[in-house]
Amino acid sequence: MDLEVLTIGNELLLGLVQDTNASDLSTTLAECGFRVVRRTTVGDDADEIIRAVREALDRVDLLVTTGGLGPTDDDITKSAVANLFGVTLELDAAYLADLESRFAAFGRSPMPASNRSQAMVPMGAEVIPNPRGSAPGLWLTKDRKNVVLLPGVPDEMRGIVREELVPRLSERFGSGKPVVTRSRTLRVASFGESALADYLDGIQEEVAPLTLAFLPDSNGVDLRLTAWSMEAGTADSLLRDAAGMLAERLGEKCYGYGDVDMASVVVDLLRERKISLAVAESCTGGLLGGRITAVPGSSDVFLGGVVAYDDSVKERLLGVSRSALQIHGAVSVEVAEAMASGVADRLDAGMGVAVTGIAGPAGGSESKGVGTVFISVHHVGKTSTVERRFLGDRALVRHRSAQEALNQVRLCLTRS
Amino acid sequence: MDLEVLTIGNELLLGLVQDTNASDLSTTLAECGFRVVRRTTVGDDADEIIRAVREALDRVDLLVTTGGLGPTDDDITKSAVANLFGVTLELDAAYLADLESRFAAFGRSPMPASNRSQAMVPMGAEVIPNPRGSAPGLWLTKDRKNVVLLPGVPDEMRGIVREELVPRLSERFGSGKPVVTRSRTLRVASFGESALADYLDGIQEEVAPLTLAFLPDSNGVDLRLTAWSMEAGTADSLLRDAAGMLAERLGEKCYGYGDVDMASVVVDLLRERKISLAVAESCTGGLLGGRITAVPGSSDVFLGGVVAYDDSVKERLLGVSRSALQIHGAVSVEVAEAMASGVADRLDAGMGVAVTGIAGPAGGSESKGVGTVFISVHHVGKTSTVERRFLGDRALVRHRSAQEALNQVRLCLTRS
Repeated sequence: MDLEVLTIGNELLLGLVQDTNASDLSTTLAECGFRVVRRTTVGDDADEIIRAVREALDRVDLLVTTGGLGPTDDDITKSAVANLFGVTLELDAAYLADLESRFAAFGRSPMPASNRSQAMVPMGAEVIPNPRGSAPGLWLTKDRKNVVLLPGVPDEMRGIVREELVPRLSERFGSGKPVVTRSRTLRVASFGESALADYLDGIQEEVAPLTLAFLPDSNGVDLRLTAWSMEAGTADSLLRDAAGMLAERLGEKCYGYGDVDMASVVVDLLRERKISLAVAESCTGGLLGGRITAVPGSSDVFLGGVVAYDDSVKERLLGVSRSALQIHGAVSVEVAEAMASGVADRLDAGMGVAVTGIAGPAGGSESKGVGTVFISVHHVGKTSTVERRFLGDRALVRHRSAQEALNQVRLCLTRS
Repeated sequence: MDLEVLTIGNELLLGLVQDTNASDLSTTLAECGFRVVRRTTVGDDADEIIRAVREALDRVDLLVTTGGLGPTDDDITKSAVANLFGVTLELDAAYLADLESRFAAFGRSPMPASNRSQAMVPMGAEVIPNPRGSAPGLWLTKDRKNVVLLPGVPDEMRGIVREELVPRLSERFGSGKPVVTRSRTLRVASFGESALADYLDGIQEEVAPLTLAFLPDSNGVDLRLTAWSMEAGTADSLLRDAAGMLAERLGEKCYGYGDVDMASVVVDLLRERKISLAVAESCTGGLLGGRITAVPGSSDVFLGGVVAYDDSVKERLLGVSRSALQIHGAVSVEVAEAMASGVADRLDAGMGVAVTGIAGPAGGSESKGVGTVFISVHHVGKTSTVERRFLGDRALVRHRSAQEALNQVRLCLTRS
């Protein structure tokens, strides 16, 4: 089943916003065996939208659009496509009632007048629920040609595609044995791209006919295996075998699959081992706590922590001695260890982790340059510390510091 | 001058790689007065490429393509377009010599055989230098229709566009007074898109001929004014006037321009007023501290804080009374205020801000649903609190809570 994607919005066309919807949609559909053969972007202009939709339907039987379904004047996708299909917009009373009750549930009654327009639906169109937002998806059909209109807000679009669109597509257009393109990703901690490529030398031949891509990012390096245009069962089995082989080769360096976050791996390990955690942060300033508490249910194991940005807070709330700060400096093994044991002690936590470093751009010295970070983990009376030197700007140094702190907690838990 | 952009590559079409070329190219060209009216992406397939090029040239006189100029088998853009233009590929001896000498300069002599194909040029095409890579850009013309082929490696493409393409376009298609497309953005705090549209009812007419886009995101709503295809001086002056009028209409709801972050606005205000800040976070778990310390130089005004995720930490480190927690619950005005004054007191800060709420997915009750958040600001002996109900999932509720906490600090500073 071939289809096209049309993304709509002046901000996309001007390049002011990255068109993540187009890539998300393409990946998800390809994984389910639907082949996106072309992607097009046009601005918020009725003539351009109509022309692009008409041209796409000359080439394929199914077009999915995103964007232009909001409540404001520049949201014109719905009326443009209705116009092309020769139907009028009519009020969907059931949808309006649903929308009003959702606004009321959040204490926003009466609903803003402009949202009422979102219950106007092209006659005969199927309304596709969007629990994350106020614009529903819409499916229009005429002469075996199908247009699906989705909202452009990325979270909403992804939700509708996964929960509503893929099941409908599979039911209506799915064949017995579709050819799919699927990927599997392994997440690798603290490893440069080149070092990892050297460590895995010759791996491309071993995983063939799959391909292996090295994708470095601020969390480490992702290794993406891809099975291209294969029968689903073959693809899945090749991916499973190759991923298993790679994971074994990587050992503790691999912390998970897909888009699993290191923080959720850590929360799961702590829960398994019934250990509570507290954090003491200097250069990360709260990022580490933020990462951990982003995981639903982290309150089972995470007590909290201290953002000891100013040295006075390291003394007051963590009991770091003034002499340690004066002799060794705030960015030192000694202070990192005092912070880790201090926060575990003050919060009565089973484990304490501390981060202190120089995020830059200012604050570096000859002996301790920007990017120097000490990470200490305190557990059952023992404290161990690693020193790292992270490359990159302030944001990257801070992100990598938090990621490596999580990694050190993980390693402390898995090794003990 | 209207043009279209065609990006070519299976990885793009499958969504495995973000198409940053498309947005970079669009922005650069629009700022220089060339209007991209459509963007298309197709895979590495000769028929699809030829069809997309032909269709684009039916609509406009200029098409810029990226991708498919490399030395490997799947790089077929050049031969496909030559085919469409009815010309053959011929060896460009001068380019070949240049390429060989560049390889030799990097100690790679003889040049790999596959690179020789990059000196094959469609007959009559103009060769556009690419000092960053081995594939040259190519400009083909026939019957007043122009196709420019650029390599897909982002650095190479950006370099060629800036150094080679824009000057050529300006010379060949530019008028005396180039028309440009430029934008200006106002950032608006804590306002739903619909409510803001209602508040600014009729604004589209007032800012004409500029357009105004409402761009909701997790930080609030951005209002982007765009001057389309105007003489540069006119565009800048219309944008300045309209932005000034909008800012006045919005009052304290507007916190800045462009992509300024609320946290940096807050840090600047604190520095101006010589006030130090401490934070007490429950549901945000460190995000608020993370936002503030992301600002370089925030250590001038930010002391640190307490992540009081577990109630025991609210008692131990912030001095919240157990009875307040038991009677009112951790998510309450009383506890928020005790956290704000507690953290200011314990850290000896001029101002304390506290966030406590229910981020979900679990933890909601009938009286306090998921998304309920209390934010307190303590300053010179006075504490004030707002209650908010944020829509969205856990991540969104947390992000909006941190953003609104920053906003409340900002309002406390600007109102006093």
